[in-house]
Amino acid sequence: MSNFSHLNEKNQPQMVDITQKTHTLRTARARATIHLGLDVLGKFSGNDVYTAKGGVFQTAIIAGTMAAKRTHELIPFCHQLLLEDCQLKIEVADEAGAEGCVWIEALVKLNAPTGAEMEAMTAVSVAALTVYDMCKSINKRIEIKEIVLLEKTGGKSHFKR
Amino acid sequence: MSNFSHLNEKNQPQMVDITQKTHTLRTARARATIHLGLDVLGKFSGNDVYTAKGGVFQTAIIAGTMAAKRTHELIPFCHQLLLEDCQLKIEVADEAGAEGCVWIEALVKLNAPTGAEMEAMTAVSVAALTVYDMCKSINKRIEIKEIVLLEKTGGKSHFKR
Amino acid sequence: MSNFSHLNEKNQPQMVDITQKTHTLRTARARATIHLGLDVLGKFSGNDVYTAKGGVFQTAIIAGTMAAKRTHELIPFCHQLLLEDCQLKIEVADEAGAEGCVWIEALVKLNAPTGAEMEAMTAVSVAALTVYDMCKSINKRIEIKEIVLLEKTGGKSHFKR
Amino acid sequence: MSNFSHLNEKNQPQMVDITQKTHTLRTARARATIHLGLDVLGKFSGNDVYTAKGGVFQTAIIAGTMAAKRTHELIPFCHQLLLEDCQLKIEVADEAGAEGCVWIEALVKLNAPTGAEMEAMTAVSVAALTVYDMCKSINKRIEIKEIVLLEKTGGKSHFKR
Amino acid sequence: MSNFSHLNEKNQPQMVDITQKTHTLRTARARATIHLGLDVLGKFSGNDVYTAKGGVFQTAIIAGTMAAKRTHELIPFCHQLLLEDCQLKIEVADEAGAEGCVWIEALVKLNAPTGAEMEAMTAVSVAALTVYDMCKSINKRIEIKEIVLLEKTGGKSHFKR
Amino acid sequence: MSNFSHLNEKNQPQMVDITQKTHTLRTARARATIHLGLDVLGKFSGNDVYTAKGGVFQTAIIAGTMAAKRTHELIPFCHQLLLEDCQLKIEVADEAGAEGCVWIEALVKLNAPTGAEMEAMTAVSVAALTVYDMCKSINKRIEIKEIVLLEKTGGKSHFKR
Repeated sequence: MSNFSHLNEKNQPQMVDITQKTHTLRTARARATIHLGLDVLGKFSGNDVYTAKGGVFQTAIIAGTMAAKRTHELIPFCHQLLLEDCQLKIEVADEAGAEGCVWIEALVKLNAPTGAEMEAMTAVSVAALTVYDMCKSINKRIEIKEIVLLEKTGGKSHFKR
Repeated sequence: MSNFSHLNEKNQPQMVDITQKTHTLRTARARATIHLGLDVLGKFSGNDVYTAKGGVFQTAIIAGTMAAKRTHELIPFCHQLLLEDCQLKIEVADEAGAEGCVWIEALVKLNAPTGAEMEAMTAVSVAALTVYDMCKSINKRIEIKEIVLLEKTGGKSHFKR
Repeated sequence: MSNFSHLNEKNQPQMVDITQKTHTLRTARARATIHLGLDVLGKFSGNDVYTAKGGVFQTAIIAGTMAAKRTHELIPFCHQLLLEDCQLKIEVADEAGAEGCVWIEALVKLNAPTGAEMEAMTAVSVAALTVYDMCKSINKRIEIKEIVLLEKTGGKSHFKR
Repeated sequence: MSNFSHLNEKNQPQMVDITQKTHTLRTARARATIHLGLDVLGKFSGNDVYTAKGGVFQTAIIAGTMAAKRTHELIPFCHQLLLEDCQLKIEVADEAGAEGCVWIEALVKLNAPTGAEMEAMTAVSVAALTVYDMCKSINKRIEIKEIVLLEKTGGKSHFKR
Repeated sequence: MSNFSHLNEKNQPQMVDITQKTHTLRTARARATIHLGLDVLGKFSGNDVYTAKGGVFQTAIIAGTMAAKRTHELIPFCHQLLLEDCQLKIEVADEAGAEGCVWIEALVKLNAPTGAEMEAMTAVSVAALTVYDMCKSINKRIEIKEIVLLEKTGGKSHFKR
Repeated sequence: MSNFSHLNEKNQPQMVDITQKTHTLRTARARATIHLGLDVLGKFSGNDVYTAKGGVFQTAIIAGTMAAKRTHELIPFCHQLLLEDCQLKIEVADEAGAEGCVWIEALVKLNAPTGAEMEAMTAVSVAALTVYDMCKSINKRIEIKEIVLLEKTGGKSHFKR
């Protein structure tokens, strides 16, 4: 017997049947860490109305939010979900060992019969790709360092990293 | 003056003008590393016609290929490109320090006035998210460890990590 | 404090949290006015089975309906909504001051935790763009003159122009 | 008076109003039959981990599942639905008169105010087109022989072929 | 060795590399046959400006055209192509043995490094599904009887059924 | 004979055949005018790093750019085009008679066999809808006052308003 919820007994891929699950409030929180390097971060300062940081971060927030709503189009067996909240925050990392990095965090909430982990993961992934795209003319060695689920609530099993 | 190609002089986001660039053969290669853990990898064996590994890896290859074609819908200022080749490979990592990991590599090729780095990066990101989605019922602590551009050729500047 | 529901306290854009809102019947009605000019309208007559008017108006009705269903893909912070009704009507304007014009009206209805104003506005906008596209070979000076919300019911606040 | 639910009294196309319908469990089952020919089927054997059959059938299952979720984007007056289950099965036909054929069956389930026939029909159609695409380098005379609804339950009227 | 152009030597699915192919004019023509039955066809008459036939056929033509442009989003390994022409025609069948049927034909043309068979096949498939959707309230036993490629020109090999 | 390029001799809608047209540089410029009212505009000031104006205008620029790339998905008979430049500018109107208004202008450029008027028109329309969406919590009487093509160059006929 397979323990992969998306594989049937012949190991063929499939959607999970959620017709019998009840609607409850569910949340998921994910985080991406990108190493931009000090060259890029050095340009993220100043007090003008429009800053480079504003241009880059706001574009990434918008791209991540829009991608979260289309997760089911990207991930083959994800159910379609109607997100009721999706917040993205981006900030320059201030922890030892994370010099030159930026953190992107997404919090997704909705009442639904299944969880929204993939929506939170997709939001931070596409936001990270957008930051990469907008800064790659300055530093070609930008790396997405990590994409992880931080927490999920609602449904059968809670999870916290 | 801004060095961000996607920000104008007021730091507002914008597309890059490529009307004067010439069409040349361009390639881009990217890699994602995912830590699935030994529990998941232990189930990726056997010699049946359909294996869990087959079901998961093939789904991820397909999802990554389809996402690569839609990169411009996800990343706000990416140009629309017509991919002429997109190969994804997934394999269990066999390097010291990468125990429990899987590598996803994408190679994208096309004749175009601009490069396809973002298409290769998007392909491996969505393939990695798909692997995550299909294995998360077994291990909730799966981590996408790294997403990087390995190489790009064609256009003004070559790049190799 | 900001009064923009889609901006947080730092004026960064965000989705509105609707997890606590109740599902009620909501309707929204919007209208677009396009000035096609008498040259174009003169061709919108006749009694054949297929008329130019039929070809243009039906294409616009279909395009507007399909766009309404995809509003959340276009407008970054719109929630995904499941439309339960979407009616578009197009007619030649018969009011003094509106000579040469066509009116497009959309009525959208659904049970949901938030309103569908943007869906009605998007429906008439894309229908108007479609009429423009199909008539621009005859008159290059076609103008979309106005796009307005006419009425919304359901939810906290009703609105009627 | 028209009996076409998607045409109004002037025979203009329109969405059906489902605001007053109740949510109930609904299922729909559809089938496509494709004649691939014995040349293609002859290559669908063997016991390796990855077989041609595996590659083709799994790709088709994934394409059909993803298309089912996007039915409302393809069929102009289909309501948006949140599928709660979508199973595709593909097998070589073993019935007299169906030599050289493959059957694709889709079963769709959800709690909703309207049925999901079109989602099941779209799933098998796109899966069949995918099989066609992947086998056409071997046999240019592949034919999709039939696409039919097999059964629907829930709502006012049940149907079984 | 595999002869499936979309499977690699391990039978894993993949896109075909077309970077070395030259741009030439290519055409593809496909046909779908749908059995609507005499009840439905009996309603497809009359001489009013707007007829049921007009409403149904025009909606199907539009849906088929729009789907053709999105073929690469539906069929996993189809290349993105820029269609330069896409004509759909729908007519009541007038051949012995085809009573109660309607024919949908699509002709697709473009200058490209690869052919557009799948675009023509997708156009008639989605047009047929749209006709089905709009007539199913009258006859639940509608069948899509056949979807075939009629002809392709350009590229290495011509084909005519 | 019909002069509608998107209607055939039976007034059925169709795509225009551009297989014989040559690739040349083409540009299109469009403008939308939105009346936001002085209440909204009064909040568009200040010198902080992130302003309400920044949040709203940048979101609209991004939404308009992304929509321009998807014009062919929205407007049924638009050809797919690969935009090579797409610039959006938004500013508070400073002309007599335009008090309380904001102007959105889009300039689209590409080498292609057909023009990009609809892409420029779609860009400003969706940007205007986005501004509307983000300001409607303050003023429900916001009106999109006008959407027009300002200029097009390239191809057979130039146009300037």
